[in-house]
Amino acid sequence: MNCLLIDPSERDAATGRVRLAGRRRRHAEEILRARVGDTLRVGMIGGLLGTGRILELDREHLELEVVLEEAPPVKRPLRLVLALPRPPVFRRLLSTIASLGVERLLVVGSARTEKSFWQSHVVDEASIRERLLLGIEQSRDTILPEVTLQRYFEPLVEEVLPEWVRGRRALLAHPEAQAECPHDVSEPVTLMVGPEGGFVDFEVERLRGIGFEPVSLGPRILRVEPVIPMLVGRLF
Amino acid sequence: MNCLLIDPSERDAATGRVRLAGRRRRHAEEILRARVGDTLRVGMIGGLLGTGRILELDREHLELEVVLEEAPPVKRPLRLVLALPRPPVFRRLLSTIASLGVERLLVVGSARTEKSFWQSHVVDEASIRERLLLGIEQSRDTILPEVTLQRYFEPLVEEVLPEWVRGRRALLAHPEAQAECPHDVSEPVTLMVGPEGGFVDFEVERLRGIGFEPVSLGPRILRVEPVIPMLVGRLF
Repeated sequence: MNCLLIDPSERDAATGRVRLAGRRRRHAEEILRARVGDTLRVGMIGGLLGTGRILELDREHLELEVVLEEAPPVKRPLRLVLALPRPPVFRRLLSTIASLGVERLLVVGSARTEKSFWQSHVVDEASIRERLLLGIEQSRDTILPEVTLQRYFEPLVEEVLPEWVRGRRALLAHPEAQAECPHDVSEPVTLMVGPEGGFVDFEVERLRGIGFEPVSLGPRILRVEPVIPMLVGRLF
Repeated sequence: MNCLLIDPSERDAATGRVRLAGRRRRHAEEILRARVGDTLRVGMIGGLLGTGRILELDREHLELEVVLEEAPPVKRPLRLVLALPRPPVFRRLLSTIASLGVERLLVVGSARTEKSFWQSHVVDEASIRERLLLGIEQSRDTILPEVTLQRYFEPLVEEVLPEWVRGRRALLAHPEAQAECPHDVSEPVTLMVGPEGGFVDFEVERLRGIGFEPVSLGPRILRVEPVIPMLVGRLF
């Protein structure tokens, strides 16, 4: 936790103060070993970064006087389209994706996505939000990436993706592609990453048809967890 | 497992055949649903890639007739120097690092590395080898990266690192650096990645003194797990 995130509803409108319990209080006490009078980095979810001076810290509560004055880091001009991976991988990736500064995430189904993955609680809205918050507090950001789910491929290709690729460079990470993934692109990107085993030929053809360029990261077959930061580090 | 790895000692010198039990047999039966007569991708640890035709597959053994004929993918010209992270992170990172094609790995101590990490069994030679094997079988490689441990900073800087940086570009991932990490470099790289919280000023100065350039990945503070693939994707 590199930044203690506060929900706007937690701030007292009259005093401007914030009173917290639970994980954030414990973090201040046990990890930061903070005391009354110390100043912590804070951020208002959806708003500015700033500092919180500790007015009170006991076994129950942490009370802060919050001053917000700094804009959060700018998001990368990156929209990510990700085939839903195995649930534990998805949980971890959500935090990573949020920490990397991805603007929007679209989670999709594919021929090789196991149906049972969609029954997992990891795709519940509350679970997704919790994992995204961990990611943005890691990277000292306050803005949650927007996450959308689209399980079925036909409406994805027909209705959803055309708007996602308009006016942007559309790249499809595809191990068998001839072209190498570009470095340091200057335009906004929509990047699509497939399931374990990759998209099937039919899917690749449909995606090419709406403007995706298949690109490769070389001959090594990698897990999706390292692939996403690898692509982000390369593209921007 | 994208390639079934075989140790040279497992191959019968007279027949050239390989008889396996345990995880690899189970993988062939349960995940690949292979049968007698099928051909699997195999690799000889330290040697070539090839195919293994199944001669026998029962509840106990998998017997293969192995033909080796393809060179493994070329390693990246990358030596990585990594401050020992928390043990569970280190375990996962070892496999990732091996899958990414890193040539050599040097695991080091630093002012912010907790001493207790060195007591963990994750730094045992057998445990390291097991995790590296998982990484290379993922990426269809047969060559293990060479791993060395150097716990103390003074001998590291005085004796070990000078040889590691000679004739190479030496980069130090450092969130506070002014310079951005370069893209798509053409020369061999030695890349150093610090502990949670970064190297302390004294360490950064010593490392600059022997030729490391501090470089940053931008304003976001990231965990070491995404940072390593991010840097690899960016540099090569």
